Amino acid sequence: MARTPVTVIGLGLMGQALAGAFVRAGHPTTVWNRTPGKADALVGAGATEAPSVEAAVAAAPLVVVCVRDYDAVRALLAPAEAALSGRVLVNLTSGASDEARELAGWAAERGADYLDGAIMMTPPGIGAPETVILYGGPPSLYETHEQTLVTLGGASTLISHDVGLPAVYDVALLGIMWSTFNGFMHAAALMETEKISATAFLPMATGWLKGVASFLEVYARQIDDGSYTAVDASLETQIPPVRHLIHESRTRGIDTSLAELTERLITEAVGRGHALDSYARVIDHFRPSTR
Amino acid sequence: MARTPVTVIGLGLMGQALAGAFVRAGHPTTVWNRTPGKADALVGAGATEAPSVEAAVAAAPLVVVCVRDYDAVRALLAPAEAALSGRVLVNLTSGASDEARELAGWAAERGADYLDGAIMMTPPGIGAPETVILYGGPPSLYETHEQTLVTLGGASTLISHDVGLPAVYDVALLGIMWSTFNGFMHAAALMETEKISATAFLPMATGWLKGVASFLEVYARQIDDGSYTAVDASLETQIPPVRHLIHESRTRGIDTSLAELTERLITEAVGRGHALDSYARVIDHFRPSTR
Repeated sequence: MARTPVTVIGLGLMGQALAGAFVRAGHPTTVWNRTPGKADALVGAGATEAPSVEAAVAAAPLVVVCVRDYDAVRALLAPAEAALSGRVLVNLTSGASDEARELAGWAAERGADYLDGAIMMTPPGIGAPETVILYGGPPSLYETHEQTLVTLGGASTLISHDVGLPAVYDVALLGIMWSTFNGFMHAAALMETEKISATAFLPMATGWLKGVASFLEVYARQIDDGSYTAVDASLETQIPPVRHLIHESRTRGIDTSLAELTERLITEAVGRGHALDSYARVIDHFRPSTR
Repeated sequence: MARTPVTVIGLGLMGQALAGAFVRAGHPTTVWNRTPGKADALVGAGATEAPSVEAAVAAAPLVVVCVRDYDAVRALLAPAEAALSGRVLVNLTSGASDEARELAGWAAERGADYLDGAIMMTPPGIGAPETVILYGGPPSLYETHEQTLVTLGGASTLISHDVGLPAVYDVALLGIMWSTFNGFMHAAALMETEKISATAFLPMATGWLKGVASFLEVYARQIDDGSYTAVDASLETQIPPVRHLIHESRTRGIDTSLAELTERLITEAVGRGHALDSYARVIDHFRPSTR
């Protein structure tokens, strides 16, 4: 079966990876970049470089855009507005949920269908079976093009009809990532003062993270049920150890801002009368209604 | 083979779990608690309640203590000082590394051998094959009693001859746990504003954490090598997404203190000239020498 022709606009590291995955999978692939010279390797591999953004949009029913930000998407596509009608715009640019919703409206006014996607992977992972791209948009539209889109990430999925949601999932997951990274950097700095290398500490940390993930299962149910009574470690029992963390860090000259934030979250929840609740109660601190 | 007699001092939730695991494994188990009435269930299961702390210490070659803090250990054991000589004190009380080192000295002055342990599990997990207790102390002493100690946690291990190290590992690992929890609570609050439940979001979050752990492998090597050049996402490329996280949170009335801490860590490293380095460079912020 002939593969759907595709266009990729924006040939930064990510755009090149996206176009490369399409080319490798046998899709007739047209590429375009604002500044020239980025398409050479792709053309060598079989892609076609369009002479203009308008020609690029006109070349395929599915137009994938991945550039710096949403302003850049608008600026790039402006000269190609007329060509957009009847096409599917798949916007993989990182941005905010409100920007995605606005852009979908802008596309609709020009007669284009719209899918928004958040790429949960770095460029080298594009095209891999485990790579996740989270999509938002009309389910029937996604289903029509799913076969083509999984070329970019084998574990991609439509998370919502709402084109704004991929951006929310994106930052929510990145927030978990950064927070875990921060905890590890603090821990590794602490171990370093005891002459224990990061690679020596690593297996303990990653093994431990598996247990942490299993706690999250319990906490997620508690959050949804609104019932936080600790089945294991109550919040009040976590005050001494978080103070130990601060103490061990301070005596070694290690920054305690992360640990102090945790101490504040725990003592605040205990101060609200939740001493016997689990750590899941900390969600109240983040929630809009309780602050 | 006859099991070694053991004594467990302190019958809070954790102490009861420890004594219960010994009883179940067939160890002649003597128990003692400062306030009475905590031993009944254990005695029903086969343990012996000692009439005094001195009798408890005298009853077995291996004396496990798990109480509120190190001051409580000293206060409890004071009347039993004479009985400590020739015994092994296994202190599983949570505390600081300097307290553990002091207590080992105190025990040595009284003729007792000393092992310090950090229990990386809640009471219901005591006795399970996957449960980890991290020990510090003389390797030959640990080996002699390993068979008995793995009764409490099947995946226990001696991490150092230094009795202070379990406390450092303990808080380092707890710090990673809390930090991951905090990231999840922020994320779950964000999803909640979009009417996505925590349990619906959970599989995405836990799947994502596996990828996060694999990034840590790369970062640990970079930290040890002192060579931080990004192989995937550079620090500068993470500034726009962390600002998106702050934006999405702020527009929903969600607390941004965690995200702002991350933004500060990233921009600070970029400001020091590390724009093209990986996230591992953030360790500099925590290190004593660079602050």
